[in-house]
Amino acid sequence: MTKKAVILLSGGIDSSTTAAIAKAEGYDIYALSFDYAQRHRLELESAKKVAESLGAKKHLIIKFDLREIGGSALTADIEVPKKVGHISPIGHIPVTYVPARNTIFLSFALGWAEVLEAPDIFIGANAVDYSGYPDCRPEYLKAFEEMANLATRVSVEGKIKFKIKAPLLYMTKGEIIRKGAEMGFDYSFTWSCYDPQKDIGHISPIGHIPCGKCDSCLFRAKGFKEAGIKDPLLS
Amino acid sequence: MTKKAVILLSGGIDSSTTAAIAKAEGYDIYALSFDYAQRHRLELESAKKVAESLGAKKHLIIKFDLREIGGSALTADIEVPKKVGHISPIGHIPVTYVPARNTIFLSFALGWAEVLEAPDIFIGANAVDYSGYPDCRPEYLKAFEEMANLATRVSVEGKIKFKIKAPLLYMTKGEIIRKGAEMGFDYSFTWSCYDPQKDIGHISPIGHIPCGKCDSCLFRAKGFKEAGIKDPLLS
Repeated sequence: MTKKAVILLSGGIDSSTTAAIAKAEGYDIYALSFDYAQRHRLELESAKKVAESLGAKKHLIIKFDLREIGGSALTADIEVPKKVGHISPIGHIPVTYVPARNTIFLSFALGWAEVLEAPDIFIGANAVDYSGYPDCRPEYLKAFEEMANLATRVSVEGKIKFKIKAPLLYMTKGEIIRKGAEMGFDYSFTWSCYDPQKDIGHISPIGHIPCGKCDSCLFRAKGFKEAGIKDPLLS
Repeated sequence: MTKKAVILLSGGIDSSTTAAIAKAEGYDIYALSFDYAQRHRLELESAKKVAESLGAKKHLIIKFDLREIGGSALTADIEVPKKVGHISPIGHIPVTYVPARNTIFLSFALGWAEVLEAPDIFIGANAVDYSGYPDCRPEYLKAFEEMANLATRVSVEGKIKFKIKAPLLYMTKGEIIRKGAEMGFDYSFTWSCYDPQKDIGHISPIGHIPCGKCDSCLFRAKGFKEAGIKDPLLS
């Protein structure tokens, strides 16, 4: 019998590589994305292409408006910082942090996983090239898993023990990209930039080109450089 | 300085009494409700009236569609059971259970509480007249609280320690209603029924009358009987 997994899929490098890993491990993929009034919706286009390219059984996009809560440069009127050549220092939580975002995302994933009877929930959390988000740390993920197993009918009745799987947790961005490339994953479908620019030259499958200056672009560039691979989005 | 609290407010007896208790304890109330495509939306009308009657600083209604996930009589095409005179046995999880619902609700509450810098999140969970929901048990709430304090910037930076407060946890329905009535809370604003009927006689402030047969109506009736108080919705 095929194993089912719910995968949190933003369309970025980490979640897309995570989905590719789950696929390679033999899981049927149930991809879950969120339209949460993030500033740019391009990542949803990326997520769709990634889910399709990996043959996801289903791709669910849940919509809600996190602007009502606010508190982040990604959902409120706070400027995304651009510091050319500068990546936020480790331990500093950037303005792109969204309050309780992974907790909200994992909660929906848990609900869907319960309905699907899928014991494994994959998340592209990373604690090495760590951008400072508290909800990407291993101790957080372990606490969520413990809570999840007390929260649901299928776990309380002993039918399923949920696992939060974060296969990238201890990998550098370079290692992540190398792993994905080895599995034949096409990174031209992924999107990282917080501040997309019009693609005047029509070179990107997503229809936009990255700014190259935001934290997320700098992490991506660093990753491809470490992996010794050319970013297909910049070709 | 006034204390702030986020209160999960469904418009039912438990969450409304919880909000009234928080108010009596001197909190500024930030009420949070969800329009999650539940079968009937009347409880949102109730929640609005309750929030207003308690002078909430803000009442936020977050909208998303749990039908896409399904798995419950409240959000999918499963019939709500009606067994006159019968309440689901303790320990049996009813079909009205919604997968991961309280986890999803508390996650949004956590995000809002972080933005507001409100350390206390109130939920009307109850483990005595327990309808069988795993995510109403004290061990679940404690696990959520532990996870919450690892999840957010304000907690990780030591500014706030979140508490999940469930003041009704060990009270019977009768005790809850008596407590609310003693505080002068008006239960005619609350709504419990899963299967509202047209109010031909125009006696209800909500515009509908309860079916009197679903689990939730039976719990409510039992509570008012125990409290020795007449349900204003049935007068």
